[in-house]
Amino acid sequence: MFFHNKGLQFEASPSKPDPIYAGRLQEVLGGQWGEMTVAMQYLLQGWSAHMPGKYKDMLLDIGTEELAHIEMLATMIGKLLEGAPADAQQKAVDGDPAIAAVMGGMNPQHAIVSGLGAVLKDSNGVPWQGSYVTASGNLMADFHYNVTAEMQGRLQATRLYNMTDDQGVRKMLSFMIARDTMHQNQWLAAIQQLKDDGLEDLPVPSAFPQSKEDQSVSYQFWNLSTGTESREGQWAQGPSPDGKGQFDYLENPGPLTGEPRPPLPAKELYVTGNAAGVVSGVVDKVKDALT
Amino acid sequence: MFFHNKGLQFEASPSKPDPIYAGRLQEVLGGQWGEMTVAMQYLLQGWSAHMPGKYKDMLLDIGTEELAHIEMLATMIGKLLEGAPADAQQKAVDGDPAIAAVMGGMNPQHAIVSGLGAVLKDSNGVPWQGSYVTASGNLMADFHYNVTAEMQGRLQATRLYNMTDDQGVRKMLSFMIARDTMHQNQWLAAIQQLKDDGLEDLPVPSAFPQSKEDQSVSYQFWNLSTGTESREGQWAQGPSPDGKGQFDYLENPGPLTGEPRPPLPAKELYVTGNAAGVVSGVVDKVKDALT
Amino acid sequence: MFFHNKGLQFEASPSKPDPIYAGRLQEVLGGQWGEMTVAMQYLLQGWSAHMPGKYKDMLLDIGTEELAHIEMLATMIGKLLEGAPADAQQKAVDGDPAIAAVMGGMNPQHAIVSGLGAVLKDSNGVPWQGSYVTASGNLMADFHYNVTAEMQGRLQATRLYNMTDDQGVRKMLSFMIARDTMHQNQWLAAIQQLKDDGLEDLPVPSAFPQSKEDQSVSYQFWNLSTGTESREGQWAQGPSPDGKGQFDYLENPGPLTGEPRPPLPAKELYVTGNAAGVVSGVVDKVKDALT
Amino acid sequence: MFFHNKGLQFEASPSKPDPIYAGRLQEVLGGQWGEMTVAMQYLLQGWSAHMPGKYKDMLLDIGTEELAHIEMLATMIGKLLEGAPADAQQKAVDGDPAIAAVMGGMNPQHAIVSGLGAVLKDSNGVPWQGSYVTASGNLMADFHYNVTAEMQGRLQATRLYNMTDDQGVRKMLSFMIARDTMHQNQWLAAIQQLKDDGLEDLPVPSAFPQSKEDQSVSYQFWNLSTGTESREGQWAQGPSPDGKGQFDYLENPGPLTGEPRPPLPAKELYVTGNAAGVVSGVVDKVKDALT
Amino acid sequence: MFFHNKGLQFEASPSKPDPIYAGRLQEVLGGQWGEMTVAMQYLLQGWSAHMPGKYKDMLLDIGTEELAHIEMLATMIGKLLEGAPADAQQKAVDGDPAIAAVMGGMNPQHAIVSGLGAVLKDSNGVPWQGSYVTASGNLMADFHYNVTAEMQGRLQATRLYNMTDDQGVRKMLSFMIARDTMHQNQWLAAIQQLKDDGLEDLPVPSAFPQSKEDQSVSYQFWNLSTGTESREGQWAQGPSPDGKGQFDYLENPGPLTGEPRPPLPAKELYVTGNAAGVVSGVVDKVKDALT
Amino acid sequence: MFFHNKGLQFEASPSKPDPIYAGRLQEVLGGQWGEMTVAMQYLLQGWSAHMPGKYKDMLLDIGTEELAHIEMLATMIGKLLEGAPADAQQKAVDGDPAIAAVMGGMNPQHAIVSGLGAVLKDSNGVPWQGSYVTASGNLMADFHYNVTAEMQGRLQATRLYNMTDDQGVRKMLSFMIARDTMHQNQWLAAIQQLKDDGLEDLPVPSAFPQSKEDQSVSYQFWNLSTGTESREGQWAQGPSPDGKGQFDYLENPGPLTGEPRPPLPAKELYVTGNAAGVVSGVVDKVKDALT
Repeated sequence: MFFHNKGLQFEASPSKPDPIYAGRLQEVLGGQWGEMTVAMQYLLQGWSAHMPGKYKDMLLDIGTEELAHIEMLATMIGKLLEGAPADAQQKAVDGDPAIAAVMGGMNPQHAIVSGLGAVLKDSNGVPWQGSYVTASGNLMADFHYNVTAEMQGRLQATRLYNMTDDQGVRKMLSFMIARDTMHQNQWLAAIQQLKDDGLEDLPVPSAFPQSKEDQSVSYQFWNLSTGTESREGQWAQGPSPDGKGQFDYLENPGPLTGEPRPPLPAKELYVTGNAAGVVSGVVDKVKDALT
Repeated sequence: MFFHNKGLQFEASPSKPDPIYAGRLQEVLGGQWGEMTVAMQYLLQGWSAHMPGKYKDMLLDIGTEELAHIEMLATMIGKLLEGAPADAQQKAVDGDPAIAAVMGGMNPQHAIVSGLGAVLKDSNGVPWQGSYVTASGNLMADFHYNVTAEMQGRLQATRLYNMTDDQGVRKMLSFMIARDTMHQNQWLAAIQQLKDDGLEDLPVPSAFPQSKEDQSVSYQFWNLSTGTESREGQWAQGPSPDGKGQFDYLENPGPLTGEPRPPLPAKELYVTGNAAGVVSGVVDKVKDALT
Repeated sequence: MFFHNKGLQFEASPSKPDPIYAGRLQEVLGGQWGEMTVAMQYLLQGWSAHMPGKYKDMLLDIGTEELAHIEMLATMIGKLLEGAPADAQQKAVDGDPAIAAVMGGMNPQHAIVSGLGAVLKDSNGVPWQGSYVTASGNLMADFHYNVTAEMQGRLQATRLYNMTDDQGVRKMLSFMIARDTMHQNQWLAAIQQLKDDGLEDLPVPSAFPQSKEDQSVSYQFWNLSTGTESREGQWAQGPSPDGKGQFDYLENPGPLTGEPRPPLPAKELYVTGNAAGVVSGVVDKVKDALT
Repeated sequence: MFFHNKGLQFEASPSKPDPIYAGRLQEVLGGQWGEMTVAMQYLLQGWSAHMPGKYKDMLLDIGTEELAHIEMLATMIGKLLEGAPADAQQKAVDGDPAIAAVMGGMNPQHAIVSGLGAVLKDSNGVPWQGSYVTASGNLMADFHYNVTAEMQGRLQATRLYNMTDDQGVRKMLSFMIARDTMHQNQWLAAIQQLKDDGLEDLPVPSAFPQSKEDQSVSYQFWNLSTGTESREGQWAQGPSPDGKGQFDYLENPGPLTGEPRPPLPAKELYVTGNAAGVVSGVVDKVKDALT
Repeated sequence: MFFHNKGLQFEASPSKPDPIYAGRLQEVLGGQWGEMTVAMQYLLQGWSAHMPGKYKDMLLDIGTEELAHIEMLATMIGKLLEGAPADAQQKAVDGDPAIAAVMGGMNPQHAIVSGLGAVLKDSNGVPWQGSYVTASGNLMADFHYNVTAEMQGRLQATRLYNMTDDQGVRKMLSFMIARDTMHQNQWLAAIQQLKDDGLEDLPVPSAFPQSKEDQSVSYQFWNLSTGTESREGQWAQGPSPDGKGQFDYLENPGPLTGEPRPPLPAKELYVTGNAAGVVSGVVDKVKDALT
Repeated sequence: MFFHNKGLQFEASPSKPDPIYAGRLQEVLGGQWGEMTVAMQYLLQGWSAHMPGKYKDMLLDIGTEELAHIEMLATMIGKLLEGAPADAQQKAVDGDPAIAAVMGGMNPQHAIVSGLGAVLKDSNGVPWQGSYVTASGNLMADFHYNVTAEMQGRLQATRLYNMTDDQGVRKMLSFMIARDTMHQNQWLAAIQQLKDDGLEDLPVPSAFPQSKEDQSVSYQFWNLSTGTESREGQWAQGPSPDGKGQFDYLENPGPLTGEPRPPLPAKELYVTGNAAGVVSGVVDKVKDALT
């Protein structure tokens, strides 16, 4: 269970309002790679972790921290929205290009819906959703997702840093960017730890016997776009990162089998091709197989 | 532009129909980590790549291959659905537990909507969507996403492999699992290549000067869940994977700042707290700052 | 069944076009709290009502009225969009700040997609959806939802009223705001009626015996955020509104149970923690319990 | 910011696994009225509250508690899924009706995607989304939403209670149902508190002058469905709950205005009706009005 | 505005309950091609119609009828759900395959969420959404959408007809299928009427001068999949349906231009490829072009 | 399977950047009627086609072409975004109306999320989704959908053509508009071909015996909106397009049945109306019918 301290993890106070920028900042709160995603994801991975101990504890530590980041962003967005124009707009648009730009560029829901508060949506007003989150039960697979989440998150935060010259906003972002640095490193260290602990290896899931996969194509690069520049990468030659194969470049690949037989129509579904009854015998055969 | 060969990349032919399993298989076609995601993602990353050459070519090679995987799955799903019961269900449910299970367990849209064809949805019938895809312009961040996509994809494919004993389905999955092995390795190799080529480094984005981030917390682990098991991982001590810091364990963290001042109400928005007019002077000050 | 009269319930005619405002107005047509929501919700509650008589009739009366409000808004939006710029934009943006603001601020789909007509989307272009609607079969629960729908709706309409000085728009909004006044009152009266008719009481659902709930915590306030200001409200002391308990303030709450045992891994799912087979015996025991 | 205690707020341990019921329980975790909704909603209302003090503190107290409920449900769902069948299904379906029912009825993503862990989705696998949440800045409007959320939540929990006879599940639900009792009462008390504190009144928002609304229809019931049973409710006669009007029953209502003039076509948008150029003069007039 | 008559357009009364089938029937209420789609679409097209007269009147006639179909389906679904099992499920599943199938196959939200009432969702529980609706302002384009909506709708209704042997359900469906027959014919007649009235022609929009399109490819079939069976259709030879061209079969098509120059990176966005500063000069040139 | 040629089908190169227009252009890439829709739809219809031969081949030819159109649009959008402002915005907004308009009007995700690349979303940033696609197995129904898709697509492309005066953009659009001309004609020819080949007829699905539909209403127009202008269309009189009936105008229609009996409450679901137990006998009777 959780306890809340009203103090913020870090100060969230802009030098002055900026309603357009408030809309931009929604991206890292409620976007695909925003704080909602990482908070709920790390907590869910922690709650579903199939082993007690350091991994589960670490997941819950960081998930709990990300909740604080949602709070900081919601606070900052509220303050950036202060004083946004809420009265007759046409007049403003006609008379003043700066206000016109604010009217045109701010998220209208910030005024109409939330009364100048943050929303759980991205910078275009699209709601955050539970399918942004991944918790597969396989920590190696999930930790790689966590790495990219922190990379995308830091990338977006640095872009937002460059989009403002407000010192208060930049101060908060400099804290969040530093935490993303930590978390990128943390997940990379955790991936190494999983290997060192013998819990998982490449390719994921390593417990599935590779003898059951079609090993003739396990390390083969298929050149399917014109040009052979792709041959020049280390993904097309030399040993594979899992240490279990040698990359091989298939320069002129083609289909390994012919055109498939079309699926057989079921008469009661009125699909095109069943009118002449040509295929009905086959359908009966399929029905026999099913029952 | 693209050219299509009617031959399948690999055979997609089940031993016999299995409408419930057809619904399960939708997950790797139209789910969060299905072939739609990787196909569109690699192509989009390729089209948006900011450099010609081996990276772009490789992205387009593999994106083009994933289109073939969508095709194989759509073909397989169509065949698994052949002969699915399409007539009066109540009778069937009453008389035969096996058919009852099929009626209860198959995706109803496979009969009603698509006439026993695949749909671009996941195993619960939720439509695939463009926000599953990531293409940030930063290849290091995106390649880590690609690694996890192939890990989640292989994990799901192996689980589906275990959920059937149909030899035809397993044969196709053994091919797809092998390709996931290749692609996991490929993206890991590509990450190394980016480093070797000096194009990107950790933390991502490496071109943002770390001097601008709050370096006091860049390598600090915050212990926010009870217990200190998280101290035992290599993410809490020793050198960080980016080679630029030493992890540091903050056992008893607390807020770095106090409770934030609430955002100021705008009178015309009728938010609670503005009735007494106490804060109106402040609002005017904020308005001045804005204009 | 329904009959349509081409006359509008109330006049919907702006003094002059305003394409940006047309986009704003979409919120109360196709947003979470727009007319689509209340129309479909009241009708659905009426169709699903489990008793004939005054409640069902009233629900169908008001649901039918809300359809007229959708019509008024669609009409108004169409007129506000008249004359929106539909030709070469770059030139306009360069030369005229007012047109630039329109180009930047209007919903692009109003021009590209709907040909200057309304859409069933909110003010950010996010489609209206059926999950905004609630009809639980329990009228007390649903009437409270209806109250808040009318409060949010009136709140948004008054904010929109303040955002324009167009007399035609304001006239229509003054009608809709008055109807929201009526409907807020109507649902509050209906809640009282349900109580007076002995059909439902607090807590909802009142037919579930409170003896089956854990009565030790039924009226207990848990103080989980720093500070004890929350103790000062009438929700933390004195009799509870349902007349069945006394509020009680738990100043220093903590977990009532310890850390849960992690869920046991199933080997075929390749979750982390099953590699060493340590827990396999437990899994078998669980399987026995299941079958 | 937040702190996490690994102890659960209350025990979450079923007597035995039940994968179908695990899918059902997702509704109160990630559905429209699940714990995700109330947790994020109360926190967001708290962070956006425009006054310090008892309201804000109370919102953060209860929002923090709801996070613990998400955790309890995720834990319970994980345990209910233990031992779910993960191997060849066709055989099972053929041989055993109970397992057939499980295969047909369990959420396939619990096996394929999450490895027997909870997901942030409802009982049909539809992702939770940020648009379930409401925080308008007007506490009276929002507290009514909170009441209905707790009513819908308690209603669903009691239905789920009746759908199982597992004593462990019922024990946890009896705790959650009791907390819903508390929270229903809490929000009703908070609504009264807002009135007693003079912060808001009916109709919401009370600060909007009713003189600006069309008062001729502010308390008028429109009978738009056949039959006049609706006249019998206290919403159609007598004083209105806001104490500011008398209900009035309009038995034979009709449109207050005629058929609207159609919106005028813009030629470059190729809408039907512009071919003959009949209306072009009017369009020009509209354009003049706009610029 | 609308008026409601409590009589149903046609009887909606099943012979006996069937909760699984109730879930199937949701498809034609709240699915992509369900009655919600056609009702809202025809009304919206009518409200946005840019000419008074027969087209607008016809659109409003049929849109109003479709509201009655939503009502019939909601009524039927409610009755099909009557008596659905709402108590302890595990016992039922163990003992009785028929009830097990119902528990596994019915939409869980019908019990938990709506209390055995219809929902505005499809047969998989995915909410209906406003983006299913199309109203472009161009009646020729939209009437073709309306034709397909009635075709898909009739197709789904006939499939559902075959999936039940309940005489009450079939009776209602036989009415709805007949109305789909009418409406298919109606839209096809309306398309002809538009041509006869000289309001629109092929290709849509006919008012866009074909001289502005690249006429070298206006009637050219590109053979991009192996095999030339596509040459055999009347889409590849002979006069085109618009009467303005001759189809032409391009057997061996290829790209008309070379590989595009990659988009130029903006340094502050940290896209891969900008590290060496090679391209910065070009970027400046682009910036000059922009401003 | 597919092969990719790095040459573009047609040149996609703007004269100069235009970030706002880049956002507009997203509509025809990732909107309801964008190239993603037609590409995936034609391919899916082809893969699911139940007959080999000219129809299947044709579907795969055109689906493959549409992939090239996605590529062209992604390329164009990337180039239009070049040089978009990515640094401190407030300053720009204050000083320069043109840049202010760009900041307010461009899609913020183009800068923050994709690093100036295209996204799989519409012009408001709403993700493309798999439910835009239709493949019913009945080619006549689907080909009508394909016609409207090409009409809506061409309509949107011509509107976008008029919204820019950039010669490079217009050149690419003139190619795409011409292809839409071809594809409209192609689908109309294919509809005729289906009839000529005797594969399907009107009403769709023609294999469902019309004797099973309620033929008393199969060709009857219901006048449900005031006015009888709708009588003047050829949809209300004369022979029906399917050649099987005569249209008939029902001027004063009314319900064919009375008010339906409300659905019976199940006690354990706590729906309103079950408190007094009045209806319990009926419920038992329904339960008997079910089992």
